[in-house]
Amino acid sequence: MSTWLTNAWYVAAWDAEVDQAPLARTICGVPMLFYRRLDRSVVAMRDACPHRLLPLSMGIREGDSIRCKYHGLKLGPDGKAEEMPIRTDPVNPSICATTYVTHERHRFVWVWVGEAAKADPALIPDLWPCSTPGWTFDGGYYGIDCDYRLMIDNLMDLTHETYVHAGSIGQPEILEAPIETVVKDGRVFVRRWMPGIDAPPFWRSALKKEGLVDRWQVCEFLLPSAVMIDVGVAPVGAGANIDSHDQGVRGMVVDFMTPESEGSHHYFWGMARNFDLEDTGFTARFKAQQGGVFMEDKEILEAQQQAIAANPDLRLQAYRIDEGGVRARQLITRAIKAQQEGAAAA
Amino acid sequence: MSTWLTNAWYVAAWDAEVDQAPLARTICGVPMLFYRRLDRSVVAMRDACPHRLLPLSMGIREGDSIRCKYHGLKLGPDGKAEEMPIRTDPVNPSICATTYVTHERHRFVWVWVGEAAKADPALIPDLWPCSTPGWTFDGGYYGIDCDYRLMIDNLMDLTHETYVHAGSIGQPEILEAPIETVVKDGRVFVRRWMPGIDAPPFWRSALKKEGLVDRWQVCEFLLPSAVMIDVGVAPVGAGANIDSHDQGVRGMVVDFMTPESEGSHHYFWGMARNFDLEDTGFTARFKAQQGGVFMEDKEILEAQQQAIAANPDLRLQAYRIDEGGVRARQLITRAIKAQQEGAAAA
Amino acid sequence: MSTWLTNAWYVAAWDAEVDQAPLARTICGVPMLFYRRLDRSVVAMRDACPHRLLPLSMGIREGDSIRCKYHGLKLGPDGKAEEMPIRTDPVNPSICATTYVTHERHRFVWVWVGEAAKADPALIPDLWPCSTPGWTFDGGYYGIDCDYRLMIDNLMDLTHETYVHAGSIGQPEILEAPIETVVKDGRVFVRRWMPGIDAPPFWRSALKKEGLVDRWQVCEFLLPSAVMIDVGVAPVGAGANIDSHDQGVRGMVVDFMTPESEGSHHYFWGMARNFDLEDTGFTARFKAQQGGVFMEDKEILEAQQQAIAANPDLRLQAYRIDEGGVRARQLITRAIKAQQEGAAAA
Repeated sequence: MSTWLTNAWYVAAWDAEVDQAPLARTICGVPMLFYRRLDRSVVAMRDACPHRLLPLSMGIREGDSIRCKYHGLKLGPDGKAEEMPIRTDPVNPSICATTYVTHERHRFVWVWVGEAAKADPALIPDLWPCSTPGWTFDGGYYGIDCDYRLMIDNLMDLTHETYVHAGSIGQPEILEAPIETVVKDGRVFVRRWMPGIDAPPFWRSALKKEGLVDRWQVCEFLLPSAVMIDVGVAPVGAGANIDSHDQGVRGMVVDFMTPESEGSHHYFWGMARNFDLEDTGFTARFKAQQGGVFMEDKEILEAQQQAIAANPDLRLQAYRIDEGGVRARQLITRAIKAQQEGAAAA
Repeated sequence: MSTWLTNAWYVAAWDAEVDQAPLARTICGVPMLFYRRLDRSVVAMRDACPHRLLPLSMGIREGDSIRCKYHGLKLGPDGKAEEMPIRTDPVNPSICATTYVTHERHRFVWVWVGEAAKADPALIPDLWPCSTPGWTFDGGYYGIDCDYRLMIDNLMDLTHETYVHAGSIGQPEILEAPIETVVKDGRVFVRRWMPGIDAPPFWRSALKKEGLVDRWQVCEFLLPSAVMIDVGVAPVGAGANIDSHDQGVRGMVVDFMTPESEGSHHYFWGMARNFDLEDTGFTARFKAQQGGVFMEDKEILEAQQQAIAANPDLRLQAYRIDEGGVRARQLITRAIKAQQEGAAAA
Repeated sequence: MSTWLTNAWYVAAWDAEVDQAPLARTICGVPMLFYRRLDRSVVAMRDACPHRLLPLSMGIREGDSIRCKYHGLKLGPDGKAEEMPIRTDPVNPSICATTYVTHERHRFVWVWVGEAAKADPALIPDLWPCSTPGWTFDGGYYGIDCDYRLMIDNLMDLTHETYVHAGSIGQPEILEAPIETVVKDGRVFVRRWMPGIDAPPFWRSALKKEGLVDRWQVCEFLLPSAVMIDVGVAPVGAGANIDSHDQGVRGMVVDFMTPESEGSHHYFWGMARNFDLEDTGFTARFKAQQGGVFMEDKEILEAQQQAIAANPDLRLQAYRIDEGGVRARQLITRAIKAQQEGAAAA
């Protein structure tokens, strides 16, 4: 059984990563290339020429088509041959590179690696803060050499901040707030509510008000592989609660993990916020700071991946803090099984 | 089934690569060392001491013999022990490193990796332009990380020049000339005849005559793994045709691909010509230029090898332009099967 | 069958290599970390947090305990959980990292990788020159990419010095002295007695006397993986013989090979001597000189390991000079079989 769901939308790239020049990226074990047509719509194609398998990403763009760098076979954006290596030869209509359904939403290019007929854009995970008026959103891309599920585990448990990020964002008081794990509507939520506290400096500066605040952290897992972390503060008495809290300032850390192979994934990370929208330096400063934080996670996760391989007699254990990750993995496993049973029944 | 023929001669090295000091090179999966006796004849021996397997290529030459660097076992050029690690110990006559039959011809050192009794020098591929009076010949060596047959495919189809070598020697008009594939006398020929054309600058300069020319390109595959490419021009009306064309200037690109492993080979490349023989700078200039061209092929071929591994569900497809490579691979496969059937019958 | 004995003591580190900070080292295929308690006793623990397998060697020391860098699980020196990731959570008493019995002796930290109940310090190989009054001892550590048994072979046959160390310590006359191999009391001895010879400069300088000497070299293999090489000279007539020779100056080269994996080992090398004890520069000079000698061995042994892999159809052969290594390997194989039979019977 594969460790990932195939009938699902995965983030292939940030919107700005894909342009006229081909981008090569392996998604769920499948080498693909991505490029934009002249009308800016995105093509996703198997990154192997149907002729002699040379990566098409080494090829030459011509209009909306791509020509292989080896013998010049020209393929249209639908993957079908348009010109043979000898241009005067009649085109064999059966020559075709596999293409994949793509969709752009929430600043990301999404790709569907499974059965194309089931690629309904309504199934794209609802990363609403990335594309809602009144919010601003940006982020970055990182290649990580570990199973994508280790990153999900990491994000669904924020207690690790205390140790992994001891030198940067770690805050021991977070460990003292109770957490609650809820599975609802096919999502997993890990929630912390910290009422009536002093706001930490970052949030004090964002809120621009004195006085005690209510603070929250809500990690939300969405199939097939997204985690949104809802963080913020509101003045005490403004009416905020764990379910509804738009009374103060609010940020959303948006994470998407796209499997590359069993032991590596593409990590798309971003920050959405509904405050200081005109502060164009905010995101740049935040990304610079978060980049260092992120390197701390990368070091831990890649060491964990190697340790799993070096200790084949040992298994990951789940404690109370891991409940979010455990529930997220259960959703993934069930979705994979459901897809397999559906395929077997059909 | 191996992907190469073993009862066959392969180029082990350029003549000048082998001297007194041992040269280590793996031929068809077998680690070998090569060195010259004092009479300049070439020894080929398994590159592993029969005692503790240390590469003999790390050893010390003594006369025509080689002494292992580890314990000093001394082996003669026939591979037989001549002195034990303790010199006064009686020599055990059964101690022997495997040796391989070699032969020098056409500026190359050839080695026979299969059954020694069948190593008839008459079976050495007839690379006649490398050793015919009135011709001059030189070239170089490259290690390539791809299956040797991908290089054969490459050389038996010159249409790739248009795209792979777009920045160097690519000429779109070559695509317009018809090609003809002929299998004859156990060889494969891919032939292009371009009558009554303007000579390109390289050939104009070689021919030293004005006026229209007939031009040819003939790729010839010879078992087990050679490709010669016959190129040149002759004045129109001089009587040249596709079968016989010594009326003008003629060059032969000589290529030999010796398997190292399933995924790598030794590439011996040279240029023979029957013009400007006294221009001692010609070969140096041509090698410098061809070195850049060659790096373009190497990049393509190694990317192709990796793409084959990354796309295990896809297969190489053959189009019309690939007929030369297809026929060459058929000859290889038939020769391997014939050898196996002969072994089974015996 | 494993290539090493598990119910045995192996050197994990020099005493000075282990301190408060964790040292990560894989012993017999098992990733371990080593550190000292506040009382200086040594802890050896599986280098994987029982929670999510992150190497504990990345963790933080707290008193005698270690806290995982990922989620802060705190483990005592007995491997048992002392604090959960959320400090206020009750400790689950079943959470435990495997620990290994250690012992310090002869300047080394020893670890027992097999059944802890059988870890009797009396079974530690008797490297007596490392801790006997009247002797001084020091040395170094090297990681070697070869099967530990290839190093045993190397050390049990000193004839290789002539060729491997031709440029440094090789002495052809050693080849002329007869050797004798003796298996006695579960040890293997390879002995050379060179009576009435001129002392070489090194020993002349150590002995500080003129006149002919008796010289000896005795290689001794001790299970599971030690070799001591007894070397020295005594004045002729002083009564020294091959069994007893404390009448002159004596050195002991002490070697311990701890398997890391099937193809690599930890090599602990030292020199003990009973002369020039106050010459504090002696060891430093000897180590510097021996370091170069040792690099010659490392090059040979790693090339041998690679050659074994590259020539799967060939086997190591044993000649007369290899008898010491052959006997040592027999002791290892018998001890492994005896352990397996004991386990099967129990």
